[in-house]
Amino acid sequence: MPLILEGICTTRNEDRTVNVAPMGPIVEGEEFTRLILRPFQSSTTYRNLIRTECGVFHVVDDVLLMARAAINRLDELPDLRPAEVVDGDVLTDACRWFEFRVTKIDDAQARTRIDADIVHHDRNRDFFGFNRARHAVLEAAILCTRLQLLPREEVLAEFESLRAPVEKTAGPREMEAFELLSRYAVDAE
Amino acid sequence: MPLILEGICTTRNEDRTVNVAPMGPIVEGEEFTRLILRPFQSSTTYRNLIRTECGVFHVVDDVLLMARAAINRLDELPDLRPAEVVDGDVLTDACRWFEFRVTKIDDAQARTRIDADIVHHDRNRDFFGFNRARHAVLEAAILCTRLQLLPREEVLAEFESLRAPVEKTAGPREMEAFELLSRYAVDAE
Repeated sequence: MPLILEGICTTRNEDRTVNVAPMGPIVEGEEFTRLILRPFQSSTTYRNLIRTECGVFHVVDDVLLMARAAINRLDELPDLRPAEVVDGDVLTDACRWFEFRVTKIDDAQARTRIDADIVHHDRNRDFFGFNRARHAVLEAAILCTRLQLLPREEVLAEFESLRAPVEKTAGPREMEAFELLSRYAVDAE
Repeated sequence: MPLILEGICTTRNEDRTVNVAPMGPIVEGEEFTRLILRPFQSSTTYRNLIRTECGVFHVVDDVLLMARAAINRLDELPDLRPAEVVDGDVLTDACRWFEFRVTKIDDAQARTRIDADIVHHDRNRDFFGFNRARHAVLEAAILCTRLQLLPREEVLAEFESLRAPVEKTAGPREMEAFELLSRYAVDAE
């Protein structure tokens, strides 16, 4: 039963600029030493990992960043600094980060399975904790990445049911993220 | 716009045993110095806070503990140790904890507002990070505390829609917690 950790993966593009994308790898145990990533073959993360064979996975608690990354609305990149061990980039505001090297690529499925070893990890600050609004935003972000696959009415109904925990428990960043995603879903005719 | 942090509050009962209950206080900023708790007046936490005027709030990432505490199925207490500053108890496995003293009680509403100052806080370990199953369990636990207030069909439909992220992203503890809550909701005729 694989536990999935939703966070942010940075990889290097061919021109050495940084790609920042949401990623939900499988992790094993709390003190994990290995990640199993499953990017779609159409994604920039997939192409970068195939080419560079390394990246940085981050545990974050900022859902506005997650939301923007999910719908490609990172108008400017978040603060970054060079990774310690791999040729990559660390999000300065991440709670924890895991620099990894790819060890195995299995392209048999539409969602490639990429095994990676953690070669360095460190922490920066505490994760906030459970907040219902943050998770509602995360669910909304995932919905936004599946707009092509789901009936529009189902998506809008889901958004409506996610709105209640947001209104009850959000701070300003969570509210901004939810509104951004709502507009994106409504505009995506 | 108040950000709510869902965690666990320990308080001392009259016989000095420990009460362990879920709590979603309002916190201000990431480095918060004050909590606003809103227990129901029918709750043990409320009665204990009125009497002892102190307690310990914990950031946790263990949803099996959250689930059991929400439905009063803590067959045995989690590991505890004495708090540092207040006359209270710290969950040994918590990520972070905040020892607090009550400064003001406003009983005008059914959900009392209790203001508290953090008098000591410390950390133990990192919070896992975003996991969809853990939040689905949290939502399911909240549903279980509202079974008397919601139409049964609505509750069961909610459980069904929460099952998908659990099955996709849970580890064994998340699965056990979700099954425990599902049985509780089904049995509560």
